[in-house]
Amino acid sequence: MITTPNAVSARKRTSIGSRRNPEAEAAVLAAARELISEKGYAGFSVEEVARRAGAGKTTIYRWYPTKADLFIAIYTMERSTFVTVPDVGNLVEELVQYTTSLWRFWSSHPAGAALKGLIAEAQGTEEALGALRDKFLPDRTADLRHILTSGAARGEIRLEEVDDKVSLWVGFSWFKLLIGELHDEDAIARVMMQIAGVPRHVQS
Amino acid sequence: MITTPNAVSARKRTSIGSRRNPEAEAAVLAAARELISEKGYAGFSVEEVARRAGAGKTTIYRWYPTKADLFIAIYTMERSTFVTVPDVGNLVEELVQYTTSLWRFWSSHPAGAALKGLIAEAQGTEEALGALRDKFLPDRTADLRHILTSGAARGEIRLEEVDDKVSLWVGFSWFKLLIGELHDEDAIARVMMQIAGVPRHVQS
Repeated sequence: MITTPNAVSARKRTSIGSRRNPEAEAAVLAAARELISEKGYAGFSVEEVARRAGAGKTTIYRWYPTKADLFIAIYTMERSTFVTVPDVGNLVEELVQYTTSLWRFWSSHPAGAALKGLIAEAQGTEEALGALRDKFLPDRTADLRHILTSGAARGEIRLEEVDDKVSLWVGFSWFKLLIGELHDEDAIARVMMQIAGVPRHVQS
Repeated sequence: MITTPNAVSARKRTSIGSRRNPEAEAAVLAAARELISEKGYAGFSVEEVARRAGAGKTTIYRWYPTKADLFIAIYTMERSTFVTVPDVGNLVEELVQYTTSLWRFWSSHPAGAALKGLIAEAQGTEEALGALRDKFLPDRTADLRHILTSGAARGEIRLEEVDDKVSLWVGFSWFKLLIGELHDEDAIARVMMQIAGVPRHVQS
């Protein structure tokens, strides 16, 4: 379920129905990554990425129809090198490992601050809200959904609970991101037990 | 645990250690409420409230040290007329009633959009983040905490789980607010059962 940079490129390439110049694409992604690091989401623009990459704005818009699409491509690429999906055969343990590595990615990498910026911008513009809700969330919760459905396959939770548990997990993790409490790693194990629905006598 | 407008005024008045002119205060709050409705959080400023209320900026700043403090006063006042704290002696039922009424308040009242604006602004300025995390959250989760501790007193959950359940509840509700899915009221009953930790055989 891990999305690699190549998988992203391949999918994007197919979706626009034309071949890309790999060197130009690498230059665009490198410039976008650099700009996100320097300026965060609010200061991120396709115009400036085009200028830095020496690429045409129209070309970039053909590959990434909006600023949010380009950000999501960068975020996905960076995340895949930091966050891996554990496979230890126990739901709580997998949720704890996954959440810990994702929170550390958000804390240490400019993409974490940029995600906060995308959520903030989504409160003001329909385009950012659409990108966040309809592209970022379905795509970026695929790993979490895989962990939860594997747990359901082992009988640890019921399959029909997976969607709500995704919402609880995203809500809890965004909340900690948005109020600047990602350092509170002690909460992860306790809350993952609650999300997994581990009975009280096992928790105590 | 219901905070009434009078209780807010009384507390504020005590906290600044001086008497306020009730008419001036009412004019300030009315102007602030009107401005929030028209412009949302981003367009909300103490300067404009002062102009509309015919009050001195310095006076308002003495009562409400920041824009966020003034917003929180308005939000609390409005919320108390819309949202009541149920007392039916069952944790899941109380959580469902409380969440439903709060989501409807957020959907129907400008204060809901303004809360999204405060969360967004907190991603860019330390002042808004401090107000959100250190004033808004402790104050505005008091009712929820009361519902959960009452449930713990009845043996429905353990007292030491209350803090994490507050985080789960706030995370879930903010998530739905931030992605514009407050209409999804069907999710409330299912998710409140998960937050309350109702065993699976009871849920099905």
